[in-house]
Amino acid sequence: MTHLYETSAINQDGVKGETFIKNGKSYPVSSPVSSEPGTNPEELLALAMSTCFNATVKALLKEQRKTVESRTETIVQLYREQETVGYYFDVKVLLGVESYDLNQTQEVLEAAIKRCPVSKLVSNSTTVNFQAIKF
Amino acid sequence: MTHLYETSAINQDGVKGETFIKNGKSYPVSSPVSSEPGTNPEELLALAMSTCFNATVKALLKEQRKTVESRTETIVQLYREQETVGYYFDVKVLLGVESYDLNQTQEVLEAAIKRCPVSKLVSNSTTVNFQAIKF
Repeated sequence: MTHLYETSAINQDGVKGETFIKNGKSYPVSSPVSSEPGTNPEELLALAMSTCFNATVKALLKEQRKTVESRTETIVQLYREQETVGYYFDVKVLLGVESYDLNQTQEVLEAAIKRCPVSKLVSNSTTVNFQAIKF
Repeated sequence: MTHLYETSAINQDGVKGETFIKNGKSYPVSSPVSSEPGTNPEELLALAMSTCFNATVKALLKEQRKTVESRTETIVQLYREQETVGYYFDVKVLLGVESYDLNQTQEVLEAAIKRCPVSKLVSNSTTVNFQAIKF
C-alpha cells in the first residue's frame, strides 16, 4: 500500500525561530506566552484540526447530497500539569451545520470524529472534546 | 485551574479556501492532492508536532545542563483506509541530538514523548511512531 501524499516539517529552533516544510515554506514561531511575532504549536494544531475536521464534514454532507454550509472552530488551551512537570493542551472542537438542529449536527459530528484523519490521531486523548453547536 | 494561553482556529471552506486564527492570521488551504497553493492539515500537523516536540527536547536538555542542538523532523503520510471509507495519517517523528549516540538520543526521545503536549494528544494512536536518529 502506497501513500497518496507526503510532507515533512523540520524544527531546530524550538519555539524561538522557525519551523519549515522540507523544500517548502518557513513559518516563524514564538512561545505562546511571549509577545514575539510568529505562530506556535497551539495555533498550528488548531488550524490542522479545524481544516481537516470541516473538510471531512463537507465530504459527509456531500455524500448525503446536502447543500448546507458547515463551520468548525477548534479552541486549544495551554495548561500546566498539576501532578507532574510540564504542560498539556485542552482541545475543544465545535461544529455547526447550517439549518441543522443540535441533534442533526450531533449525528454529523459523530460520523466525522470517526472519519477525520486528525481526529483519529487524537480522539483517544482525554483532553480532546467535540461538541455540536448552532451554525 | 486557569489556562496560560488560548487560541482558536476557524474553518468554513474545508481544504479549498482559508482557515484563520480568531482575531489573527489567515492561512490559505488546499487539498494535499491538488496543485493549488496553500497549506493543508498534513503540513499543519507536521509543523505543530515538530515545533512542540523539539521545544520539549530543548527544555529537557536545558534541565540536564546540556548545551547541544537538537532537530525534530515529522513526516506525515496520507493513506486511504483499506477496510472502511476515508483516509488516515501515518506520522513519523524523528529526533536527532548533536553529539549524542542513538542510545542517548533514545533516552531524550522517551522523556519527550511523555512531556510534549502534542505528543500526549497523539501517542496512543497506532499510526504515530517516534524514532531516534543521528543528528
